Amino acid sequence: MSTATIGSESNIGLTIRERDPLNLEYPFDQLDEFLTPNDLFYIRCHFKAPVLDCHDYKLSIYGAVETPLKISYEELLAMPCVTKPATLECAGNGRIFLVPQVRGAQWQLGAVSTAQWTGVPLTALLEKAGVDPHACEILFEACDIGTPKEEPIPPGEIRYARSLDIAKAKDVVIAYQMNGEELPLDHGFPMRAIVPGHYAMASVKWLTGIRILTEPFTGYWQTSDYGYWDFDENNNPMRRALGPMPLKSAIARPRTREFIPAGESYRVFGAAWGSETFVEQVELSADDGKTWNPVTLIDEAQPFVWRRWKFDWKVPAEKGTYILKSRATDGQGNVQPDHYDKRFGTYVIHHTFGIEVIVR
Amino acid sequence: MSTATIGSESNIGLTIRERDPLNLEYPFDQLDEFLTPNDLFYIRCHFKAPVLDCHDYKLSIYGAVETPLKISYEELLAMPCVTKPATLECAGNGRIFLVPQVRGAQWQLGAVSTAQWTGVPLTALLEKAGVDPHACEILFEACDIGTPKEEPIPPGEIRYARSLDIAKAKDVVIAYQMNGEELPLDHGFPMRAIVPGHYAMASVKWLTGIRILTEPFTGYWQTSDYGYWDFDENNNPMRRALGPMPLKSAIARPRTREFIPAGESYRVFGAAWGSETFVEQVELSADDGKTWNPVTLIDEAQPFVWRRWKFDWKVPAEKGTYILKSRATDGQGNVQPDHYDKRFGTYVIHHTFGIEVIVR
Repeated sequence: MSTATIGSESNIGLTIRERDPLNLEYPFDQLDEFLTPNDLFYIRCHFKAPVLDCHDYKLSIYGAVETPLKISYEELLAMPCVTKPATLECAGNGRIFLVPQVRGAQWQLGAVSTAQWTGVPLTALLEKAGVDPHACEILFEACDIGTPKEEPIPPGEIRYARSLDIAKAKDVVIAYQMNGEELPLDHGFPMRAIVPGHYAMASVKWLTGIRILTEPFTGYWQTSDYGYWDFDENNNPMRRALGPMPLKSAIARPRTREFIPAGESYRVFGAAWGSETFVEQVELSADDGKTWNPVTLIDEAQPFVWRRWKFDWKVPAEKGTYILKSRATDGQGNVQPDHYDKRFGTYVIHHTFGIEVIVR
Repeated sequence: MSTATIGSESNIGLTIRERDPLNLEYPFDQLDEFLTPNDLFYIRCHFKAPVLDCHDYKLSIYGAVETPLKISYEELLAMPCVTKPATLECAGNGRIFLVPQVRGAQWQLGAVSTAQWTGVPLTALLEKAGVDPHACEILFEACDIGTPKEEPIPPGEIRYARSLDIAKAKDVVIAYQMNGEELPLDHGFPMRAIVPGHYAMASVKWLTGIRILTEPFTGYWQTSDYGYWDFDENNNPMRRALGPMPLKSAIARPRTREFIPAGESYRVFGAAWGSETFVEQVELSADDGKTWNPVTLIDEAQPFVWRRWKFDWKVPAEKGTYILKSRATDGQGNVQPDHYDKRFGTYVIHHTFGIEVIVR
């Protein structure tokens, strides 16, 4: 189990966005393999990572259930397990591209990574406990604690906790391994809820409680923070919790302001992902969105994970500044939008934005 | 219909807390009659008061109803009406007494007033429209519009709107008269929802829509603003909408730092109010809460309105500084608390706090 002390051997190559709590960015321009190595997987913490002893650890499953359970680490490891890949992305990924600048860690493109997650299907735990038929949400309770930053702020220190519609429970893994290794401390050791397809604030780390609810939860992490404004038929803003990652593509290479030799071929490389929907097509524009060309998709289409893509760009002979953009389309015909949607405040940055490069 | 232009003949004697939008405080130290005269009734606006022509006015009743209605001003006035008194208090009344200072208009004691309200019972309108049995809330929609101040702030301008549990509909009056006069502009002309017993943010002014909802509303004015933190069994903060005014008493006279002649009798005067519960007793302390004496209650006990009270204080012969406090008890044995509850942020200031006077 590694502790991501800045300057230790671990996390070499990550970019520090915040030291306390620890927020480290994956070098997205180095995207190569489908799975992100554990040491390069981006880290997003709200508070200091709590150090739990797995031998004392118990996961409580309680609330609207027939049989409340307290399950030890060893018991969880002895249960039938599943392994599945999921791309996790911070809801604030790409925030630095917003104009004007907004609050929060100034993530560039690398608050996103992909891993294989091994653990117990949540449905197995729910079956064991016997869920009340009136249950509507699952609350994941963690043990990291502190004072959060977004207004309105509740008094005193609070723990991280976030609820999920019970219909989504079918996809959730209570994970204890990441890419075949024991879950690292900064990724939630000993147990993390993995909610495939949702922004990673839903994948609660240092998980200690699973509470079954018959009323919607309105906790801090889905109202003050990680919420957005939906507008009703009369344009009244309605506060809602962030959930699924919308359709998105991003250019890993070239980097912004990269120098590119004129008249040669350059392999543009990137990834595209959505939530439940499959990425069906990605297009690239080298003229700021005027014309578009389809790229080659590398990975198979599946929900909840990125598809890497590549495009061999015939770089013009004419020197100057060029703006590259990528644009994803899913199987339902949804297209990545051109502009940022301000209802999301400081989150959900998934529009096509230009990567400016210098051809010379 | 008077417009409360500052400096006009109206609202003489009110204290300006904010000019734009207009927020004017009732001179609580002049509390005398049970009903506050319209010109002295405190004014709380979020945006510029919209000027509506009552001849063009229509109140829409829609949403989860059998028959959506649009009712004119004249039709509303022709319906059977009720008249009932209600004390309205701003949820931020007494804010200046919080230490450390918090955001918002620095109300002293006078963001509270009482009037007789005449209008159509909401239940009559709901019966006319035929409410869906699955309805859970009533949304009052107004036409004042602007950009609010509390984070998180939605993009663009929004209108004032607030929902209410449908069980409370039985008490609501859709009012067009205040103390027997046409509703003044700054109090919501031509129609205002009066929600007796709730903080006055629930008594929506310039009412144009009543929408029946089958899902809880999470609008700006009950999440970002006018919300509070309730803590669940595991100390997770839960965001909830402010509603009923809790039990409270306040001293109108003497004022803070008033000079009082030593050795004489001084008539302390004040009011106490709650929501559904009746104020049963008010006590006064002249020694900062060490000893308490019952006061004489002036008005009869009834819900939703204040009870004025008086106490003839035998002022000590010994000169010096004295701290007066009042404390209310309701019929269920609830006692006004000693300390401010920080879960309410900048609202619900109903604890006993000292009025310092100088005996000389």
